[in-house]
Amino acid sequence: MTLQLYDLAGAEPERRFSPYCWRTKLALMHKGLPFETIPWRFSDKNVIAFSGQGRVPVLLDGDHAVFDSWAIAMYLEDAYADRPSLFGGAGGRAVTSFVNAWADTILVGGILRLVVTDIFAHLDTRDRAYFRETREKRLGATLEAVSANRDTDVLAFRKTLEPIRTLLTAQPYFGGETPAYADYAVFGCFQWARCISAFQLLTRDDSIWAWRDRLLSAFDGFARGSPGYPV
Amino acid sequence: MTLQLYDLAGAEPERRFSPYCWRTKLALMHKGLPFETIPWRFSDKNVIAFSGQGRVPVLLDGDHAVFDSWAIAMYLEDAYADRPSLFGGAGGRAVTSFVNAWADTILVGGILRLVVTDIFAHLDTRDRAYFRETREKRLGATLEAVSANRDTDVLAFRKTLEPIRTLLTAQPYFGGETPAYADYAVFGCFQWARCISAFQLLTRDDSIWAWRDRLLSAFDGFARGSPGYPV
Repeated sequence: MTLQLYDLAGAEPERRFSPYCWRTKLALMHKGLPFETIPWRFSDKNVIAFSGQGRVPVLLDGDHAVFDSWAIAMYLEDAYADRPSLFGGAGGRAVTSFVNAWADTILVGGILRLVVTDIFAHLDTRDRAYFRETREKRLGATLEAVSANRDTDVLAFRKTLEPIRTLLTAQPYFGGETPAYADYAVFGCFQWARCISAFQLLTRDDSIWAWRDRLLSAFDGFARGSPGYPV
Repeated sequence: MTLQLYDLAGAEPERRFSPYCWRTKLALMHKGLPFETIPWRFSDKNVIAFSGQGRVPVLLDGDHAVFDSWAIAMYLEDAYADRPSLFGGAGGRAVTSFVNAWADTILVGGILRLVVTDIFAHLDTRDRAYFRETREKRLGATLEAVSANRDTDVLAFRKTLEPIRTLLTAQPYFGGETPAYADYAVFGCFQWARCISAFQLLTRDDSIWAWRDRLLSAFDGFARGSPGYPV
């Protein structure tokens, strides 16, 4: 049976840019589960009210609803245990929780400040006032002020990525020889930026560039094929 | 058979402060393997020349020598596969590599700048010139200048720990319900500081404080019993 995923979209319905929804889509691809996505905007909170909260991703498996990308990953791993594992065992699941937390804090926080005006530019007009108000409150400044110095701020951001470079000297993926959910948790953040911004988060000679490129190519170029900017 | 570990020591032979050696000692405790430590100083490079390099930890298992804390963890996991796992499976091993890389870059780098003069003060006199020269070259400033503003620098350091706090809202250890090598990789860095410095890296209300306290108590208080400062 085809699963259904409520997936954050921009003004163009096919522009899907949520880092959390990207994690879920790649987890579904990893599991080889057929799914369809339903474009969703911030102002469509009533559409997912059945899930008991107001954010995506929301996954519908038959009439069973799961929300929150980490909870969805847990659900998929357990409900489809006969499919390729997202974690490679209980130890992998536990430690991936740290990678997920690192991505949520360091990457989401760092990237948001660099591309927030680009996100805004791609939003459906109905979403713009909500986005500006909530993000400016969270960031403590106007969207424009936050990203005004991004050409220099990106240098500090790149330094925060050093642990990935150290990892990549030893192995091609967080998951080892093949990608795992830890890769998707991190990649989702880069894909978020790629979908809405031409700003270069990475330099071409960075080992993280090559890792990102491998994940853009994974699953027959699933992520690369989604509307976005060249990287 | 008792394993032997070359373990970095200060002027007092029982003051053992290497973050990497602490990882190895806790891995040996986790595996329940009997071991003895041999105090080693930076100037004793000839003593471990048999390992083909000049840094500790160096583990001797009979006449088999292994160096580098991560390589030692791999060795112990494979050579003593019937003992409690350090990783909880292949997926855990792969992803723990990221935690190890994060600790090596963000924690070792961050803590070194805060406690480097305290390390110096505890060194054997034979090691002092070597330490000052190599660390001042690496840090690009005198030891005293690097840590001069630590009372304010520690505030930025604490922010870099946010991923640990996020993790600890979901589970008590990196390893899940019980500690694993990922915990020891991170804890070793805090224990390094505790062994040579009274400087408070954490505030008492920080969830990381409580996690560190649980690990200080692990294995019948093995880490807490080692000469150091109250935290």
